[in-house]
Amino acid sequence: MTYQPPLRDMQFVIEEWLNAPADWKVIPSFRGVDAELSRQVLEEAGRFTAEELAPLNAQGDRQGCQLEKGQVSTPEGFAAAYQAYVNNGWPALACDPAWGGQGLPQLLDAALQEMLASSNHAWAMYPGIAHGAYECLRAHASPELKDAYLGRIVSGEWLATMCLTEPQAGSDVGLIRTRAEPQGDGSYQLEGNKIFISGGEHDLTDNIVHLVLARLPNAPAGSRGLSLFLVPKRLEKRLNGVYCEGIEHKMGIKGSATCALRFEGAQGWLIGEPQRGLAALFVMMNSARLHVGLQGLGHVESAWQQARSYAAERRQMRAVPRSANSVEPADLIQEHPALRRTLLELRAVSEGLRALGYWGAHLLDQAEHAPEPQARAEAHQLASLLTPIIKAFFTEQGFQLSSAALQVFGGYGYVNDFGIEQTLRDSRITMIYEGTNEIQANDLLIRKVLGAREPLLGNLLDTFRGEAELCGQTESCRRFGDVLIQQCERVRYLTDDLMDSQDPEHPYRAALDYLRLLGWLGLAFAWARTARLAAPKREQPFYRGKWETATYVYDYLLVNLERQAEAVQASRAPLPFLPDDVSIG
Amino acid sequence: MTYQPPLRDMQFVIEEWLNAPADWKVIPSFRGVDAELSRQVLEEAGRFTAEELAPLNAQGDRQGCQLEKGQVSTPEGFAAAYQAYVNNGWPALACDPAWGGQGLPQLLDAALQEMLASSNHAWAMYPGIAHGAYECLRAHASPELKDAYLGRIVSGEWLATMCLTEPQAGSDVGLIRTRAEPQGDGSYQLEGNKIFISGGEHDLTDNIVHLVLARLPNAPAGSRGLSLFLVPKRLEKRLNGVYCEGIEHKMGIKGSATCALRFEGAQGWLIGEPQRGLAALFVMMNSARLHVGLQGLGHVESAWQQARSYAAERRQMRAVPRSANSVEPADLIQEHPALRRTLLELRAVSEGLRALGYWGAHLLDQAEHAPEPQARAEAHQLASLLTPIIKAFFTEQGFQLSSAALQVFGGYGYVNDFGIEQTLRDSRITMIYEGTNEIQANDLLIRKVLGAREPLLGNLLDTFRGEAELCGQTESCRRFGDVLIQQCERVRYLTDDLMDSQDPEHPYRAALDYLRLLGWLGLAFAWARTARLAAPKREQPFYRGKWETATYVYDYLLVNLERQAEAVQASRAPLPFLPDDVSIG
Repeated sequence: MTYQPPLRDMQFVIEEWLNAPADWKVIPSFRGVDAELSRQVLEEAGRFTAEELAPLNAQGDRQGCQLEKGQVSTPEGFAAAYQAYVNNGWPALACDPAWGGQGLPQLLDAALQEMLASSNHAWAMYPGIAHGAYECLRAHASPELKDAYLGRIVSGEWLATMCLTEPQAGSDVGLIRTRAEPQGDGSYQLEGNKIFISGGEHDLTDNIVHLVLARLPNAPAGSRGLSLFLVPKRLEKRLNGVYCEGIEHKMGIKGSATCALRFEGAQGWLIGEPQRGLAALFVMMNSARLHVGLQGLGHVESAWQQARSYAAERRQMRAVPRSANSVEPADLIQEHPALRRTLLELRAVSEGLRALGYWGAHLLDQAEHAPEPQARAEAHQLASLLTPIIKAFFTEQGFQLSSAALQVFGGYGYVNDFGIEQTLRDSRITMIYEGTNEIQANDLLIRKVLGAREPLLGNLLDTFRGEAELCGQTESCRRFGDVLIQQCERVRYLTDDLMDSQDPEHPYRAALDYLRLLGWLGLAFAWARTARLAAPKREQPFYRGKWETATYVYDYLLVNLERQAEAVQASRAPLPFLPDDVSIG
Repeated sequence: MTYQPPLRDMQFVIEEWLNAPADWKVIPSFRGVDAELSRQVLEEAGRFTAEELAPLNAQGDRQGCQLEKGQVSTPEGFAAAYQAYVNNGWPALACDPAWGGQGLPQLLDAALQEMLASSNHAWAMYPGIAHGAYECLRAHASPELKDAYLGRIVSGEWLATMCLTEPQAGSDVGLIRTRAEPQGDGSYQLEGNKIFISGGEHDLTDNIVHLVLARLPNAPAGSRGLSLFLVPKRLEKRLNGVYCEGIEHKMGIKGSATCALRFEGAQGWLIGEPQRGLAALFVMMNSARLHVGLQGLGHVESAWQQARSYAAERRQMRAVPRSANSVEPADLIQEHPALRRTLLELRAVSEGLRALGYWGAHLLDQAEHAPEPQARAEAHQLASLLTPIIKAFFTEQGFQLSSAALQVFGGYGYVNDFGIEQTLRDSRITMIYEGTNEIQANDLLIRKVLGAREPLLGNLLDTFRGEAELCGQTESCRRFGDVLIQQCERVRYLTDDLMDSQDPEHPYRAALDYLRLLGWLGLAFAWARTARLAAPKREQPFYRGKWETATYVYDYLLVNLERQAEAVQASRAPLPFLPDDVSIG
């Protein structure tokens, strides 16, 4: 697979769609960050991912990881690529300069994350988790812990994990049983078993910093009794009591070591307050979920690139209608209407998600750095509403569109020689980890739309309506604005209906369809703005392509928005429990 | 994985939904076939698939096939299971008694095919292809070829292949280059390379009968120049010139050997007329595509069984609303509304597809055996309209719902220990082989709906309307009838619009969505009839379950029908060619 970093489109999103450089200008800590620097950073990241990571992707899938005597070997080339990544300073990109970071915007890191996922999702799992650990330690760890660990995580010298899941506790962390006993010296001794720990053991770094959810003695049952601990693989003078007991054989991301870890007499230190473990994790939630969403985008982009190159080379059957000057016995498959639909869908979703996803990242930057407290608060609210949408909608699209791209290859799509079946397998996990998509949907609808005191949804719809008004001011774009306004009203109506419902189960039945509805509305918004920006420059191929794709989205893809609206409406009906005849043989 | 053959539901479909025994009674060659015999056959088939095949499924995936010195070894246990299959007489089930067959209805074979796919899709590939070869030889081969081969294929002593695809000729058989030279003794010498040949080489039978599409000298280019040849692996006294040069490493069905075959000095015999090779294959098209559709049904059924057992055991989080007498810290995941939706969808689609798929098989029986020529002709027409729908819609559901079932398992769904990720990987090929789903869609809309002289669609819609009227006669079922009538009118309107279109590309843009539309309409029909049959017996758990599921389908699932109708309507809009900015880096 040849990966071509979509630098031109990234530039469009960052500089035109978001107009991010204007926002950077007024942020003191982003002094010196401008469009030119942004392009340089992305070009470098593009080079690294295309030249160092993409070539390792297929072989990483074939080799997988090996566990021998408690030690994990990653696929050939993974460790060297990680060293190059560290040497180039990528782990520190968006970290605080106080801890050795480069202090660049999350927005640029988002583009990097997309490229990492497109080029080698399995490899990207190792550094991907470290950023969350960094945020968590930075916000909640004691000065001593920060001094000992934070700089080394920022530099990439050490990698980190998040140890939450246990066999009986997956989506439900309240069922966690791992215990932590205070040792009297300020440290704790941890005992318990964790599973599905990405990067729980590997050969990329000397040390691994585990962040472990566990229970103090006499802690209450449930999630409110959890505390967070830092447990390094290696203590100053000896190995700690952390044992890798197995690695999973998985459908995809085979180059990523998914470990079962046993903590036995493991020394650790409390992060944050006792029994406030979930709160300590909360600080990283938005960016961790955004990252997973960006993996979905990365898969769509990769699927789109693979499908379009194959479709531009492979000839099968005559297209209807056929171009008059065709002399070959068969036409390129990119000429066939059914395939053109697939290719346009891949393009439209990939570029639309990029705008939305980078917006999410840009909002995280605003939430942290915007000069006005009001602007920070608003950005934070919007970001927290967008995050579950980005996580779940993007990853679902990543999987669905990898499958659509595979179909373009016909039988060749099903064999290992082409990369697309790997993309499909790799993409499937993103709908599950970092909170299943069903959990994202409940977070969005029940917690953030129906449960929040602030009118979070109102702000989002206002942003969409603002764009619709701008579209309405240009004759050629009026159509986009009209549809967008209509659909915003529909979402408002459906939301009010859910708010007024007397049936406590109703929102839980509606949640996933509601999330998808907002995802499609977001795409409609993304393409309306894109159309408006492209309209005056349609004589240039790049903008003409944008315009045609926007037209395609509004002609063809928004039936999905309609479907989701009807699905939300349908969820008013009661839902039977599993009928009791199912075990009748 | 424990596979439970859904015998009770099969019985319901065959005996009540289709009322097949009444049709059998008036067919002389089905004398003695009745409900009791049908149950016995299915029970035996259920025992065989659950006890012999299902236990080999996971290990077949792990081991895959091995190629050494031109010979393929199948996974452990595959050959022994095949011997048992032959000894039990399964290959001969629906074959002509003149050739040693048991002469039972295709309908019973359809149930067998479903069970084979549910329990072990990879294994089922080997015998699955033989049936098409049987039909083709029976209809077109010379008496000498029939004598030499047909009985041995019917008994299962020898297996068969279909050799169509070549590297440059996938969907487009017109690009086939393999050549056949007459040898003057009535035989031909074949030279060429075929790929993606399922069961092209294996260790299940001594001989393999290849049916090969090739070109006679001076045959015209394109698909009209193709002839069909029978080329055995083994001639009477020596091996023939057929060499297995490679086996594919695939996403799934790893236990099925997908071979690259080289024909070099291979002796073969013409089947049917010269240059009428495609016509000779045509006789098997409907049943071969029906079989692939039944694989889709098999995957949905398997996914449904896996998801429901996991959901009935695993506890995570408290459900909203919670049952008052709950004492556990977490509820069964089958109690959570989002999961209940998934489980009901799995059930509803599985059972609905079963009714439709078995109907397709029953129509093939009618087309061959019904006493009245008019009844035979009508059944043939309906079957040929239903076939592409069954092939494409069922396989898409097989893939989509395997993914939905995987989601029920959370992280456990992504690892090999549970079978669901294998089901997902196995299912994906069915959307591609035996004519991609895009090709099925063109066959349905362009050839059969818009192109046929007979009003094929009209007959189908009349059948649906007839059911709607019956529903209308019972108060409790009126709702199903009303919706069904409405939706039939909508399909009629959309079809007329396509017929009247002046844009030759329009139907090609619409075809896949149109096929899905008819698929959902078919499901609506299946569940309307089920509801009507279940309504008077709702005090029995089996029928109450049917009734509740039908209600769920009409409350929740038919938004997909709406979506498809809108998508067909949307395809009026012109579709751009791939914009020319896509290669801008």
